[in-house]
Amino acid sequence: VPEVIAGTEETTTGVIRLRAMENDGALRFPIVAVNDADTKHMFDNRYGTGQSTLDGIIRATNVLLAGKKIVIAGYGYCGKGVSSRARGMGAQVYVCEVDPLRALEAVMDGFRVVPMHQAAREGDIFITVTGDRDVLRREHFDVMKDGAILANSGHFDIEIDLKTLGEMASGERRRAVRPFVEEFLVAGPDGDKRILVVAEGRLVNLGAAEGHPAAVMDMSFANQALAAEWVLQQGGTLEPRVYPVPPDIDREISRLKLDSMGVEIDTLTPEQREYLSSWTVGT
Amino acid sequence: VPEVIAGTEETTTGVIRLRAMENDGALRFPIVAVNDADTKHMFDNRYGTGQSTLDGIIRATNVLLAGKKIVIAGYGYCGKGVSSRARGMGAQVYVCEVDPLRALEAVMDGFRVVPMHQAAREGDIFITVTGDRDVLRREHFDVMKDGAILANSGHFDIEIDLKTLGEMASGERRRAVRPFVEEFLVAGPDGDKRILVVAEGRLVNLGAAEGHPAAVMDMSFANQALAAEWVLQQGGTLEPRVYPVPPDIDREISRLKLDSMGVEIDTLTPEQREYLSSWTVGT
Amino acid sequence: VPEVIAGTEETTTGVIRLRAMENDGALRFPIVAVNDADTKHMFDNRYGTGQSTLDGIIRATNVLLAGKKIVIAGYGYCGKGVSSRARGMGAQVYVCEVDPLRALEAVMDGFRVVPMHQAAREGDIFITVTGDRDVLRREHFDVMKDGAILANSGHFDIEIDLKTLGEMASGERRRAVRPFVEEFLVAGPDGDKRILVVAEGRLVNLGAAEGHPAAVMDMSFANQALAAEWVLQQGGTLEPRVYPVPPDIDREISRLKLDSMGVEIDTLTPEQREYLSSWTVGT
Amino acid sequence: VPEVIAGTEETTTGVIRLRAMENDGALRFPIVAVNDADTKHMFDNRYGTGQSTLDGIIRATNVLLAGKKIVIAGYGYCGKGVSSRARGMGAQVYVCEVDPLRALEAVMDGFRVVPMHQAAREGDIFITVTGDRDVLRREHFDVMKDGAILANSGHFDIEIDLKTLGEMASGERRRAVRPFVEEFLVAGPDGDKRILVVAEGRLVNLGAAEGHPAAVMDMSFANQALAAEWVLQQGGTLEPRVYPVPPDIDREISRLKLDSMGVEIDTLTPEQREYLSSWTVGT
Repeated sequence: VPEVIAGTEETTTGVIRLRAMENDGALRFPIVAVNDADTKHMFDNRYGTGQSTLDGIIRATNVLLAGKKIVIAGYGYCGKGVSSRARGMGAQVYVCEVDPLRALEAVMDGFRVVPMHQAAREGDIFITVTGDRDVLRREHFDVMKDGAILANSGHFDIEIDLKTLGEMASGERRRAVRPFVEEFLVAGPDGDKRILVVAEGRLVNLGAAEGHPAAVMDMSFANQALAAEWVLQQGGTLEPRVYPVPPDIDREISRLKLDSMGVEIDTLTPEQREYLSSWTVGT
Repeated sequence: VPEVIAGTEETTTGVIRLRAMENDGALRFPIVAVNDADTKHMFDNRYGTGQSTLDGIIRATNVLLAGKKIVIAGYGYCGKGVSSRARGMGAQVYVCEVDPLRALEAVMDGFRVVPMHQAAREGDIFITVTGDRDVLRREHFDVMKDGAILANSGHFDIEIDLKTLGEMASGERRRAVRPFVEEFLVAGPDGDKRILVVAEGRLVNLGAAEGHPAAVMDMSFANQALAAEWVLQQGGTLEPRVYPVPPDIDREISRLKLDSMGVEIDTLTPEQREYLSSWTVGT
Repeated sequence: VPEVIAGTEETTTGVIRLRAMENDGALRFPIVAVNDADTKHMFDNRYGTGQSTLDGIIRATNVLLAGKKIVIAGYGYCGKGVSSRARGMGAQVYVCEVDPLRALEAVMDGFRVVPMHQAAREGDIFITVTGDRDVLRREHFDVMKDGAILANSGHFDIEIDLKTLGEMASGERRRAVRPFVEEFLVAGPDGDKRILVVAEGRLVNLGAAEGHPAAVMDMSFANQALAAEWVLQQGGTLEPRVYPVPPDIDREISRLKLDSMGVEIDTLTPEQREYLSSWTVGT
Repeated sequence: VPEVIAGTEETTTGVIRLRAMENDGALRFPIVAVNDADTKHMFDNRYGTGQSTLDGIIRATNVLLAGKKIVIAGYGYCGKGVSSRARGMGAQVYVCEVDPLRALEAVMDGFRVVPMHQAAREGDIFITVTGDRDVLRREHFDVMKDGAILANSGHFDIEIDLKTLGEMASGERRRAVRPFVEEFLVAGPDGDKRILVVAEGRLVNLGAAEGHPAAVMDMSFANQALAAEWVLQQGGTLEPRVYPVPPDIDREISRLKLDSMGVEIDTLTPEQREYLSSWTVGT
């Protein structure tokens, strides 16, 4: 076996960073962006994060989601998954976005899209899934309702500005109230109010539940394994760039997954296949 | 104003054909693939087709969708839209696909994915949104239930093989039963059965309703207009290829659309913007 | 056949009135409250009204429901049906109620429950399904947005106070803009605004569409027919009171309906039947 | 305080038994059927059981619900809640019923209604919420797929016939595989298959999670407390019968609950109130 130095990257945030490194000429070896495979991000980020985020919040707080106003910051694949499942559990879902296209998609999907400064006043539960920092910060803590629950299912524990929240409620005004739930007693215009942070603002599905179910990780790890094999097959020919997972691998994983679930699908007839590739047949 | 010969293409199927022409060297002038703009296909194809397809079927048949088994052939943007709305109206939705990734997505979205030869036996209403021909054909007509309703919301009137269906039920065995609804009396093992075809198998939203609402066509037509302007701005420099709508145009349309709906969104702080583009800050 | 003078009542509002007459001693002959049969109001009012109300609004206006703020006044069976279907079409649904239990149910079902004076400011489309008068009135017209669409799917054309709206926009300021859609140009603090009324405020599914689909009316009319037969079987023994549809009839209709749809269900084993009726077996 | 011997009953099953005792003349003291209060069974049974049943299954198994075929036995308030939430999490939901009216409601709500002997072959996860015994039994175990998960959220641990299942897989063929999950290795025509039982077939939300969230139990317990007070207020005048919770109490609880959630609702105008009670005003 030849020695090949290369990497594969599992997360959205990791790929963004590695692309930035590539652009700056700082990348030293080739990377396969496993996250960007359809069978990874379309399933892991959407259906995995969708379920496990709510699972983490429920395990930590045992809160009833029905009737709650749940604010989702970010409407990428993770945000789409969490929004859909939160609505499926009977919540009123608010979506906050910085990207107009995604915001428009959220509106058309039936969600209430408002800026965070407005959502902060109305929400019962806040979930950050953005990949950015300080999505919830002092200006939002200031106007939140008593008992607001904050959780992060984005990249790291900086999506919620916990440093500032800790300054707003230090010493005895900060205490654990349940496993994985910390209460911050914050002074407000109408007296003190409680803000509850789940799993220290770390990834709530890992911090307070069991991460994603095996039934989505199987596809992510299949991409990892087959991407590693593919890198090896290229010998040392790859440059220090970020490569996509080859489409054939992606497609084969979806076929295998369907098979493992016992789902049978259609195949094109020869006439249908010809029609699709032609521009002379038909209209 | 200089003379520029170029085109813009509105539909998924058109773009597929034009790409095939480009690959064959048969394209004579530049084309902008308006369909592929996010503000076009993500909205027109999904939310527009989603609503107007059901609208056409209801106007033509006045059938109750709740409790019906509705079979959607194709799970692209159009199929996703129709499936989502059909479920929203209380139907049991079956999805048929040839692409394993899309099939898997449909499964994870909660739909029943089976091959058409099975769906054909169980369905009450069939909707084709594939871009291909003969999606419903003799082998399916043969096993359909009495009273099955067939509609096409895909590209042309060849998604349902009406030629064959006409041969299976000719003369007096074929008749109009309501405006836009034709009944085919087909011989089956248990006697005759009725198969109902809406809008002659042509696009059901155009044939039996009013097409898409203005609130999605505005974005499609904004893409058309701005793409045409962009072509002009390029002078005669474009080659005979299929070009995407420039991302700036796409983004500006989504911003304008949100504005017209009175929806306000967030903006990144300078720190957030820096964090996203950096790989040295943070973790 | 003996002569029997009696009646059967199809609607919620009719039954309320007939009960009021019974209480006042004003009822002169027996009435069977067909509306109150489970196979009537649970299906006709919920699934029938749910679909046909939206159908009427779409046919009249061709408005895209996705992303719209739709305000439903009343969360009885009709309101539940319309709310569920409006959400299913991608709308953000607001519910207005006077009954705290129903309001609570709407909240837990994930809808945004607010008083009408607040909803009036935010809504794009308003649908009344209350059985009461003046649900939308001057104080609400005053604060509505330009282009608000008003429809009634409740009992009569008094749920929207059209008399007052007509006074607010008379003469040339009131005009037909599409079949079944009238525009009222109303003066507001920021200049004139348009309020659009569908089907003259009459039942929108009858006024602008085809009423309920046959697949729900079959159960309503089965109740009518079998209730009439039952009245006859009682000879002249019934008093001038409001009678329920006998439960056996109700149950038989649901059995027949399932049968017609090809749906098979389970039957209790003898042991299960005994267990249910016993208090000595088991725990 | 006078001494009053009486009881209040929290559960559907308990009320059924107490009514059977009343009918047999075996009830010795008055009972208030707390379960039958609207603010109890409409919320606790539907929204509480809906969430906590799935919570229990996820905590015990960490299974992904999206794309799974989940079979719900029973479509009462509990079954409605579980079905709605399971669909909301992306599952394909099957409903099994013995009552034709409820079965019809499930169909119209978009669920797949089939007899258990068919569902048993197709399901991935089975949830019993019936109040009866042996809902899942040998004939069903025989045809289940490898890896089927069984949970009960009904009344007692007899909804699944675990005695028989234990006979089908005894000794080493029965083992704990995760906390709260027991695997039964059952012989089948194609070799051994695994059937997994959660929480010993006891109430899965209590056995494997934390029971209902406080936000639904508050209403149940308010009914308990106020019903007890009401019993006391009646002195010793109540007979040994099953009494409903007085409607005023029920209504007051819903009002208080809305208030605690910060939800404001409408009030009838005097004209509206008069209209509702009149049969001479209006049409």
